[in-house]
Amino acid sequence: MEMVGFDNGVRLDPVLQATDDEFGGVTVEVKDGTKPETFAVLLRNSLSMWNRQGKQGVWIKFPKGLENLHDIAAREGLECHHAERDYLMMINWIPMTPSTLPGNATHRVTIGAIVLNDRREVLVVQEKKGKFRGIWKIPTGTANAGEGIEDAAKREVKEETGIDTEFSDILSFKVLPSAFFRWTEMTFFCAMRPTSFDIQTQESEIDAAEWMPVDAFAAQPFAMEDEVCRHVIDLCYAKLGKGYSGWTPNEVKSNLDDKPSVLYFNPHDLYKSARASANDP
Amino acid sequence: MEMVGFDNGVRLDPVLQATDDEFGGVTVEVKDGTKPETFAVLLRNSLSMWNRQGKQGVWIKFPKGLENLHDIAAREGLECHHAERDYLMMINWIPMTPSTLPGNATHRVTIGAIVLNDRREVLVVQEKKGKFRGIWKIPTGTANAGEGIEDAAKREVKEETGIDTEFSDILSFKVLPSAFFRWTEMTFFCAMRPTSFDIQTQESEIDAAEWMPVDAFAAQPFAMEDEVCRHVIDLCYAKLGKGYSGWTPNEVKSNLDDKPSVLYFNPHDLYKSARASANDP
Repeated sequence: MEMVGFDNGVRLDPVLQATDDEFGGVTVEVKDGTKPETFAVLLRNSLSMWNRQGKQGVWIKFPKGLENLHDIAAREGLECHHAERDYLMMINWIPMTPSTLPGNATHRVTIGAIVLNDRREVLVVQEKKGKFRGIWKIPTGTANAGEGIEDAAKREVKEETGIDTEFSDILSFKVLPSAFFRWTEMTFFCAMRPTSFDIQTQESEIDAAEWMPVDAFAAQPFAMEDEVCRHVIDLCYAKLGKGYSGWTPNEVKSNLDDKPSVLYFNPHDLYKSARASANDP
Repeated sequence: MEMVGFDNGVRLDPVLQATDDEFGGVTVEVKDGTKPETFAVLLRNSLSMWNRQGKQGVWIKFPKGLENLHDIAAREGLECHHAERDYLMMINWIPMTPSTLPGNATHRVTIGAIVLNDRREVLVVQEKKGKFRGIWKIPTGTANAGEGIEDAAKREVKEETGIDTEFSDILSFKVLPSAFFRWTEMTFFCAMRPTSFDIQTQESEIDAAEWMPVDAFAAQPFAMEDEVCRHVIDLCYAKLGKGYSGWTPNEVKSNLDDKPSVLYFNPHDLYKSARASANDP
């Protein structure tokens, strides 16, 4: 944890071991077993040195088990940035300019799975708990951290109904601000094709699951009244009618990113119209 | 903060003041000025009572300034759930079953603004810092917590270039896992129409901004090589060619939500094909 700081060759007091980041700031990962009295001294020395060095943001990560150091950091002016189950990240913005430190995560991603078989039936479930109780609805769920939309959709359908699926396309998405704390919920409606047909419901969360004719699904009183549910039914009919193309995932790699990303768009229409326009005089 | 607990009519030790949530759990907002020794006793009493009462998740919110209580909560088994600049939320999952507590936010939303005028020109900028330095690129930026995609796109264009815009449609989106900490970045490519034309660049972040012919934008060496940049150029040509319809925002209200949400889809194709299919015999 401890190291001796140098500043223009002059020997300084011991400071925290830090890594420079690409934005002119520093990151410290506090080590297990760091004692409060040691941390207090090192932090004060470090902040003073970073200030002289013109460092911008200071990021300090406290692993679980070091909650006794949070207060020391707060007294030196650090604030919470974000937390996960296994750590708290605190930050300090040294220069006296408005903060341009990147913010916390702000959104959660959920999926709604529209699984249609070739008999104009849609896969529906009834949940044991929550606001949808007693209503036939499509399988829905929250994507895990780092999980892609297609994987989340396949996983939720499998967990809730036992049905294996292939992903087809994203038909639409819904944005609900402040759905949970300050976070916005983005729900991606995914068209899926079943590759197995035996329903096995998830005991803990699902009361019942079945293949229901889309017309019967659309005729439920709730489905006729609720704007979002009506939209899901429009999507079912649109997908059955084959006149609506959703967006498909396409893996690409930017030279500026160190990992691939996935682009979603309507490939047929995009390339058709892009080519037509590029060839315009 | 303090109140006397009752359990089946039996008077108990003083406990924390808590609100029941809809999932069988309780939420406590710790009050400013709570003393560590008081908090320790109240928390222990409370956890013991909630346990007897069969409460599920326990959520405890520590406003900024009460970092000296984090350690006490951690010693009683609470873990960090999430944090914002002004608070830390810690949780405890009382029953001995796998946790079904809802997770933290996992995504950040950014926008890429494709602003096209009626002379086949696209609005481009050069950034002062970062990986895009020296490259003409479309304006990009991160949506604030609670900010809609359209508002974020208009704000970023205005901030970076001084240009006012109208939102047209979302043409595509990109998903990049683990872009920043564990969070996935979702970038929505928005087609916009300018409603003002005088460029004024943002001094702090932007070196230059201009209207550039799409053909010249496409001819940059970087743009020809980079897969994501090529995609942005395809989107420009597709939008110019008018053969590609993106998704437009449509405000709706579900009876199950207490606030409206926004649905994004291709309305023309959706309703055309939905109607056609619903009328099938």
